[in-house]
Amino acid sequence: MSLPASSTSLPSIDDVIATQERIKGVASRTPLAESPALSKRFGRGVHLKLECFQPIRVFKIRGAYNKISQIPERRIVAVSSGNHGLAVAYCSRLLDKKCTIVLPETAVEEKVNAIVEFGGEPVRFGKFRKEGEAEAKAREIIREKGGVLVHPFNDPDIIAGTGTIGLEITEQLRDIDSVIVPVGGGGLISGIALVVKSLSPSTKVFGVEPEGAPKMTASLKAGKLVDLEAPKSIADGLNPSTVGSLTLEACKRYVDGMFTVSDDEIIQAMKLLVREAHIFPEPSGAASAAALLKETNLKKLGQRVVLVISGGNVSLSLLAKTLA
Amino acid sequence: MSLPASSTSLPSIDDVIATQERIKGVASRTPLAESPALSKRFGRGVHLKLECFQPIRVFKIRGAYNKISQIPERRIVAVSSGNHGLAVAYCSRLLDKKCTIVLPETAVEEKVNAIVEFGGEPVRFGKFRKEGEAEAKAREIIREKGGVLVHPFNDPDIIAGTGTIGLEITEQLRDIDSVIVPVGGGGLISGIALVVKSLSPSTKVFGVEPEGAPKMTASLKAGKLVDLEAPKSIADGLNPSTVGSLTLEACKRYVDGMFTVSDDEIIQAMKLLVREAHIFPEPSGAASAAALLKETNLKKLGQRVVLVISGGNVSLSLLAKTLA
Repeated sequence: MSLPASSTSLPSIDDVIATQERIKGVASRTPLAESPALSKRFGRGVHLKLECFQPIRVFKIRGAYNKISQIPERRIVAVSSGNHGLAVAYCSRLLDKKCTIVLPETAVEEKVNAIVEFGGEPVRFGKFRKEGEAEAKAREIIREKGGVLVHPFNDPDIIAGTGTIGLEITEQLRDIDSVIVPVGGGGLISGIALVVKSLSPSTKVFGVEPEGAPKMTASLKAGKLVDLEAPKSIADGLNPSTVGSLTLEACKRYVDGMFTVSDDEIIQAMKLLVREAHIFPEPSGAASAAALLKETNLKKLGQRVVLVISGGNVSLSLLAKTLA
Repeated sequence: MSLPASSTSLPSIDDVIATQERIKGVASRTPLAESPALSKRFGRGVHLKLECFQPIRVFKIRGAYNKISQIPERRIVAVSSGNHGLAVAYCSRLLDKKCTIVLPETAVEEKVNAIVEFGGEPVRFGKFRKEGEAEAKAREIIREKGGVLVHPFNDPDIIAGTGTIGLEITEQLRDIDSVIVPVGGGGLISGIALVVKSLSPSTKVFGVEPEGAPKMTASLKAGKLVDLEAPKSIADGLNPSTVGSLTLEACKRYVDGMFTVSDDEIIQAMKLLVREAHIFPEPSGAASAAALLKETNLKKLGQRVVLVISGGNVSLSLLAKTLA
């Protein structure tokens, strides 16, 4: 997999603080809300970082706005079948830029429509799940039309964006024992972990991946990037075939451990969050709660646990199933 | 209906600005998000003020925290079968106070549980919908146990709380033509209207009530408080039998007009918001969108419309119906 030229090194805390200022008024400072029902059920404080309450109902707005607001070119190009595409379209529109999103032929109609609604120009391309191929298509578009590629996770500006979640968490709650974060390409956990471990070294940061797409778990084990053959999970945001050089580096340095959860456990976690905490996460967003449901040795998480609920762009048919 | 002793006069803009500082870190600055789908459908900019993204998924946290944080007594007493009780229980817990909520025998189990979860002590009392009777019960509790009654709407500190929504709206978007606000006891619209009309006099502010509970519409028409016999609507947050002296005063001064909508129109609006804007409002929260759906002369709303989505504590069975 080729990486964008901008992926050089991880952001510093100062970069994250500057980012917090840059995205103010666009991305929300989301609530970190204790769920008394979940606290009672798990016998420890369970606090939900509600990124599903962002304007586009997903954390991706933070990194995308941070990145795109620093790009002078008029055209933005991204590869995504989901939330990254939505965030890039939304932020490009705010910043008065043109935006092209390379989508797989298999992309869900609902998500394509949302991208188009915000003025994104969709380009359908194959059945890719290999990031490399679609990225080659994106580069071809840039050669023709100009513009800048915005990578979904392996970019210091994207990671500085997710780092602002770490700043907020440490400001909103003291003495946190552990933070559990869903892992797709690793951008979300990289930013959170580097900030949290810097400001609160005793807090543990755990990642969680679907059993069908354990790319970070495999890469950490191998000590190098592993490209999965056919990643597959109900959590469509956690399905890239590989993580990035930067996000792997961040996880090596800052992450204390990884969980894997099954699709069924993710659905159980969605039901739990809907019924007991009255929030409506997408499957990726519920993966952190699935880790808590699955873990038999809860002691290792300590008495004060933060679950990052990364997004709420759940399909209505799946939401209906969690209510049935 | 007897009114609490504290209801003297409407807050000033300076009071609202002081409140904004007081509730910082507890209440969220919620997104004001354009819905491209609704903008397209209605041929004008439709922007949603997402109070359903508050930590307890309803705007009531703003006034309750503002009020309770200024009360030295250790016990808070409130009358509510719903969101006000939830907000008072939540804020009392944060401020380390005891809290008693007088509830009707008919209160929905789901909402009672939520109040208990946050440490509120529920006291069941009759089938009241007449605020006066339940308030008498609350005063009896205060005579026995001590404490301070927190009124759900007719209080300058509660109205200063909702006023912060007005501040945010005027900061978040320029050249707003109209703002549409659901009306229960009138606390929400009072705060928003007094701020918006002060800072942006050309913006129109409209209220919306259920056909089954048109207490503000009737009171404005009569020029005095009207106490309805049997208010009834699917929008349980909009069902008090009367508004307050302060909220009536605010609406006389600052509100440009009222809409009434049927329960069926509210359900249609919920479906619209769920399906096209991907948010999950409670019936009260969708009433503003119902007014837009019902209005045939959209021109009077202008080209840039804000819908206040006041809350998202929808029952799961009703949510399932909107998805069916």
